[in-house]
Amino acid sequence: MIVVIGGGPAGRIGAMHLAHAGREVRLIEKRKIGGQCLHDRCMTICALNDIARLIEYARTQKDLGILDSVPTVSYPAVVRRMRDVQEKLSTVLDAETRRAGVDIVYGAEGRLEGGRVFVDDEEVRADAVLAATGSRAAIPDIPGTDLAGVYTYQTLPDMEELPCRMVIIGGGVVAAEFAHVFRAFGSNVDIIARHEVLRGLDGKVRAAAIRDLSGVEIREETAVLRIEGSDRVRSVLLAGGEEIEADAVLLATGLLPRSESLQGLKKGPDGAVIVDRRMRTSVEGVYAAGDVIGPPYLTPAARREGTVAAENILGHPAIMDYTGIPQAMSLRYDYAFATTGADGEGVTLSAPAPAGPGSFWDVAGGWAGLAQVRIDPETGRLVGAAACVPGAATLLSYVGYLMKRGITASDFDDIVEVHPSTDGVYGLARYAADMLRKRDG
Amino acid sequence: MIVVIGGGPAGRIGAMHLAHAGREVRLIEKRKIGGQCLHDRCMTICALNDIARLIEYARTQKDLGILDSVPTVSYPAVVRRMRDVQEKLSTVLDAETRRAGVDIVYGAEGRLEGGRVFVDDEEVRADAVLAATGSRAAIPDIPGTDLAGVYTYQTLPDMEELPCRMVIIGGGVVAAEFAHVFRAFGSNVDIIARHEVLRGLDGKVRAAAIRDLSGVEIREETAVLRIEGSDRVRSVLLAGGEEIEADAVLLATGLLPRSESLQGLKKGPDGAVIVDRRMRTSVEGVYAAGDVIGPPYLTPAARREGTVAAENILGHPAIMDYTGIPQAMSLRYDYAFATTGADGEGVTLSAPAPAGPGSFWDVAGGWAGLAQVRIDPETGRLVGAAACVPGAATLLSYVGYLMKRGITASDFDDIVEVHPSTDGVYGLARYAADMLRKRDG
Repeated sequence: MIVVIGGGPAGRIGAMHLAHAGREVRLIEKRKIGGQCLHDRCMTICALNDIARLIEYARTQKDLGILDSVPTVSYPAVVRRMRDVQEKLSTVLDAETRRAGVDIVYGAEGRLEGGRVFVDDEEVRADAVLAATGSRAAIPDIPGTDLAGVYTYQTLPDMEELPCRMVIIGGGVVAAEFAHVFRAFGSNVDIIARHEVLRGLDGKVRAAAIRDLSGVEIREETAVLRIEGSDRVRSVLLAGGEEIEADAVLLATGLLPRSESLQGLKKGPDGAVIVDRRMRTSVEGVYAAGDVIGPPYLTPAARREGTVAAENILGHPAIMDYTGIPQAMSLRYDYAFATTGADGEGVTLSAPAPAGPGSFWDVAGGWAGLAQVRIDPETGRLVGAAACVPGAATLLSYVGYLMKRGITASDFDDIVEVHPSTDGVYGLARYAADMLRKRDG
Repeated sequence: MIVVIGGGPAGRIGAMHLAHAGREVRLIEKRKIGGQCLHDRCMTICALNDIARLIEYARTQKDLGILDSVPTVSYPAVVRRMRDVQEKLSTVLDAETRRAGVDIVYGAEGRLEGGRVFVDDEEVRADAVLAATGSRAAIPDIPGTDLAGVYTYQTLPDMEELPCRMVIIGGGVVAAEFAHVFRAFGSNVDIIARHEVLRGLDGKVRAAAIRDLSGVEIREETAVLRIEGSDRVRSVLLAGGEEIEADAVLLATGLLPRSESLQGLKKGPDGAVIVDRRMRTSVEGVYAAGDVIGPPYLTPAARREGTVAAENILGHPAIMDYTGIPQAMSLRYDYAFATTGADGEGVTLSAPAPAGPGSFWDVAGGWAGLAQVRIDPETGRLVGAAACVPGAATLLSYVGYLMKRGITASDFDDIVEVHPSTDGVYGLARYAADMLRKRDG
C-alpha cells in the first residue's frame, strides 16, 4: 500500500496517478480534500475577484452612461456563499478521487518518523509514502498579530463585516490580489511593504498592476513596528512613527512549509522538506511534493510534483521540470507570465493589448491591457511572454508550453486566432518575426 | 503600385504585408478602415456581449444575495458609446496601417473591369490588385423587410430604443448572439428559424448554447410568411398562421459577398469571387480575399487570406489552409471549436468544465460550462476540441494550432496550466491519454 499524506493538489493528483496505475492508495486528509488551493487561496481569490471585476466593469460602464447603477456587495453573503461553493467543489473532488480508486481517510493526521508512517497514533505499513502536507501563512515577528481583527488569507473568511479601513502588510502577489478585491468592494486599503511592491515583475507589467491598484494607498520600503489595539486591532504603527487606523489587518507576508509532522527528513532552514528532482526525500521510500518542499507555492507546480513523485514511486524515473511554468496574478485583469530564458536574455517587445471580451469598454479610458514577448534574436525563439488582459491565464498556459517546445516568432504565422481576442502575444510575435526577416534580408 | 480595394481584415492585413515587404500600396476604402469586423460584426457583438454578460453574472450574484442589485442598461448610450469606441479603434488601425507604409484613400470606390482598375471614375495603373470588398447582410425574400423597425446587423445601431419585443429571423450564430444580448438587456426575444437553431454544432455544445438562450422563445422549422405593419413593423406572420407582435425585427439570415463593383471576374451563383488556394481570381494579377470570396466569413480566415494573397503577389507561392481554423460564438460564455479531423472520426469525450475566473459563482447553479475533445484512438492525436467557458476563444486559438501541429493526448501531460482555469480541454486530453495507456498496457 502507498500512503499519501495531504489531499491538496500535490497529494491528490499524486494519489490518483498511483491509483490509475493500479496501486492501492490511502490518502490521509486532516480537513477537506482540495487543500489550500480550493479552500484558502486560488479559489478564494477567484471567488472574490469575480465580484470585484464585475463591480469595476460596472463602474466603467456606469461612468459611460451605459448602466444606471453599480451593485453593492454584501460581504457576509460573499463569505457564506463562497464556503458553499467550495464545499460543493470539494464534494466533486472527493468523488473524482474515490472514482480513481483512492481510499480517503478524513480527520486523521498522517505523521512520519523517518520511514515509519503513523495515522494519528497507529503505525501503518506502507511500501512508499508521498508527503504533501502543504504550507501555512507566515506570521511576521511583530507585536499585535494575535489581536482580533488581524487575519491571514487562511482566517480571512472569519471576518464578519467589510472593514471600513483595511491595512495589508506585505507587498507580494497575495497582498496585491486582496488589496484589489477589498478596494473594489469599497474598503479603504493601505498596503505596507518592506520592499518595492511586486518587485521582481517586469517594469511594464508591474506598472499595469499598480494601475489596477489605483485607489489603494501603497507605502513601500516601510517597516511595521507593531499592530495596536486592546483586544481588537485599532491601528498599525510604522517604523517612522506614522500610525494608520485599521478595522482589519491582513498579514500577507509569505508562506511557510507545514512540515512539523514529518520527522526524520532532511529539511531546509524554513522547514521545507528537501527533495531531489525526482521528489525523493532523504529517507528511502519517502517522497514529498507541493508546498511542503517550498517555493514556488503554485498549484500547477504542486500537481506536477505530485505526478513526478507518483511516477518515481511506480519505478519510472521522471524528473521535475520547472522551466516555463507560468505564474499568474488576478487583479482587474488576469496577469500571467512565463519564461524559459535567463534573466536579461533576448529582446523584449511590449504593446497595448487588443480590446476584446471583457475589455471592450475599457478602450474608452485608453487602457485595455498589455502584451509582451521576449525573443532570442539569434534563433528567433520565444523565451518569455507576459499578458495583462482578460484571459491571460489560459493564454500563458499554452504559450508557456509552446515556449518549452521551442516555438519561434515566425511559427506564430500559423496560429489562427479567434476574433475578437484580447491576445496581443501572437500579434507581437508576428511583428518580431517580420523584423527578424527584414534583418535577414 | 499595388491597389487593394477594401480596408477590412483581408484588405488591410494584405496591404500591410505588402508594404512591409517594401511594395508601394494604395488602399481604397469607401467608409472607414476596419471593415465590418470592427464596425458591424465582431466588435459590435463584443461590445454588447460585455454588457450582457455583466448583467447576467450580476443577476446570478444578486440571486445568491452577494450583490444588492442588477444594473439596467441605457440602450441609446450603449450605441452612442459603442460608436465612439469603434471610431477610436478605427483611428488606431488607420495609424498602424499608415505606419506600415500603406497609402489610404478614403471615400472613393475601387472598381474592376477585368484587369482594369478604377478609383471612382479614374483608371489607375496597378501591377496587381487585391479585391477585398467584403459582404453584406442577406435580405430574405419576404414582404415587409423594408418597414421601419426591421434591421440587419448592419443597421441595428440605428435602432434608437431597446425594443419591448424583438423577433429575430434566422437560426445561426448571429441570431443566437443577438438574441442572447437583447434578452439580457430585458427585451422579449423570439427566434424564428427555418431549420434547427445552431444546426451543425455538436449536440452537447448546442445544448449548452440553448441553455444560454433560456428565456428566448425559439421556433424551429418555421417559415416567416411576411413582416406586417403600415410604416413601422407591428408583427411577424408565420407560415402556420401565427402572428408574433414585434417592435423590432432583426434579419439574421446570412451574408452575401459584395462583389458588384468587381466586373469581369468569374463568380459563383451567390456572387462570391472564385479564387484558387493562392487567392488568384480568373483574371491574371487580380487576387481576392475575405468575405467577397464567400464563407467561412470569419475575420481570422480573412486576415490569413489577405496574407496569402499578398505573399503570392510578392511571388511566394503560399497556399491558404483552412484546417483547424477555430470558430467561435459569444453567448453567456465564449464558445469555440476547431477540428482537423473528418466528421465522425475519432472518439469524443465531454465533461463539465472546471470553475474559474468568470464562472465561479455559476457553480452554485450547477453549470460552469463544457469541455470536449475528439481523439483518434489509433494515433492518440487530437482531431477536434470544443470549449464553452469564459476564455474559450483564446484557448481554442492555441489548441487549434497544436492540433494542426499534430499534438497527441499524451503531449498534454507537458502543459502546465495556470490555476484556477476554466480550461477543461487539457484535463480531458490527459484523461484520454491515461485511457490509451491503459489500453496499450
